[in-house]
Amino acid sequence: MRVGFYQYAPRFGAIQDNLDAVIDRLESVDCDLLVLPELAMSGYQFCSGEEVARLAESVPDGPTTQRLMELAKRRQCSIVVGLAEHHAGTLYNSAVLVGPLGCMGVYRKVHLFFEETLFFSPGNLGFQVWPIGDTRIGLLICFDWFYPEAARTLALMGADILCHPSNLVLPHCPDAMVTRCLENRVFSITANRIGEEARGDKPALRFIGKSEIISPSGNILHRSSETESELVLLDIDPMQARDKNLNPYNDLLRDRYPQYYK
Amino acid sequence: MRVGFYQYAPRFGAIQDNLDAVIDRLESVDCDLLVLPELAMSGYQFCSGEEVARLAESVPDGPTTQRLMELAKRRQCSIVVGLAEHHAGTLYNSAVLVGPLGCMGVYRKVHLFFEETLFFSPGNLGFQVWPIGDTRIGLLICFDWFYPEAARTLALMGADILCHPSNLVLPHCPDAMVTRCLENRVFSITANRIGEEARGDKPALRFIGKSEIISPSGNILHRSSETESELVLLDIDPMQARDKNLNPYNDLLRDRYPQYYK
Repeated sequence: MRVGFYQYAPRFGAIQDNLDAVIDRLESVDCDLLVLPELAMSGYQFCSGEEVARLAESVPDGPTTQRLMELAKRRQCSIVVGLAEHHAGTLYNSAVLVGPLGCMGVYRKVHLFFEETLFFSPGNLGFQVWPIGDTRIGLLICFDWFYPEAARTLALMGADILCHPSNLVLPHCPDAMVTRCLENRVFSITANRIGEEARGDKPALRFIGKSEIISPSGNILHRSSETESELVLLDIDPMQARDKNLNPYNDLLRDRYPQYYK
Repeated sequence: MRVGFYQYAPRFGAIQDNLDAVIDRLESVDCDLLVLPELAMSGYQFCSGEEVARLAESVPDGPTTQRLMELAKRRQCSIVVGLAEHHAGTLYNSAVLVGPLGCMGVYRKVHLFFEETLFFSPGNLGFQVWPIGDTRIGLLICFDWFYPEAARTLALMGADILCHPSNLVLPHCPDAMVTRCLENRVFSITANRIGEEARGDKPALRFIGKSEIISPSGNILHRSSETESELVLLDIDPMQARDKNLNPYNDLLRDRYPQYYK
């Protein structure tokens, strides 16, 4: 299975231009699953709820979902992309999964970070796992990494690959995802963005790049630079995530003791 | 609060000699809380259940608990030490907490690793938190680090410091404990051993050292070498672990969504 991510810097607010540029870059890509960053077409640092509302899209009718559905159909691949979603009068920080057959689903970020809490509602759909052929993928968005329950829940639901659109500004996540993959014996694909955003009178945010693909045994199969745009594709065997044996004596999920866990 | 660990190499099976050497080394120590490794006096790599039974001790009547209780009383400190425990006909890989007033409690390792599963029963007491003055400490043993539920359970029970006697042979734990402390905003003290053990016809085990103390914000306050004996003491403010605010918008434990967690 050929999987990957595209690390780049969107221009704030320019959804159509960002979509044009991303789709142009991906037009000749040959892969099964590609992950794009959080809020991949809108940019991240909103100044007001009105601004979020103006840039938010409906799923599947909005431009990001529609144009990536078309790309997914042309390229016969699945794509995960982060976007600001409006649904029934509420705004969510969401990730959409599109595939060759259309829009497969949406995940709404449960663990909102910092000022996101001002502009978005916490996800109301919980965590879900979708099949792509024989493989099962689960979606997390950025700060969800901080809560071990999120990745664990997806692993218990059978996820083989954690798809993780991100807009990371703090340093710890890339190393922590090694722990997340080890402790769940799953793959992860973290698609982070690069560049800076200075909006209004807010301090400029610098995104840390370092998008990465990690194996179920905690190997960093690829980690990108902190500053460069990168389109990375790797061949993996997702069925490695089905073998939960750590050694001849330990089976990861069998050896849990939920009766002692809070 | 002055806390620390003693990283060293016990000699297999020589409980009395190891106790003599450790107590001699600690006799002049001035601290509030000291953590010793897993199976700190017996050694780790047992060849048979009979050997475990011969080296296992009762709590609090066995020599390790008794002699460390005496030391804790003389030095007016608390000590966490790993030992093979026999209780009611069953063998556990345990950690004992002793303090100036006596033996405060025992934790029996829940997540047994590799051939430990042949010789020990999984802990039957769950996870517990004990007070040391104003500070609350929780106990984990070695491979318990692999299960995020263990540290999370202790944090939810109010632990400020995770005391973590270990006999690590694989490389991932020292970095993973940074994640454990970050995601729970607690301190950790991992006391690992050093040296090699070659027993019978088994492959020699090399323990990785790298004992460490980590802060609630994921700073490695000290990490020891892979090969040298080290007695490390640091001053920390355990009340830092009570502030679960990650920033003005995020409170770590308030912002959990258990309704979505499996």
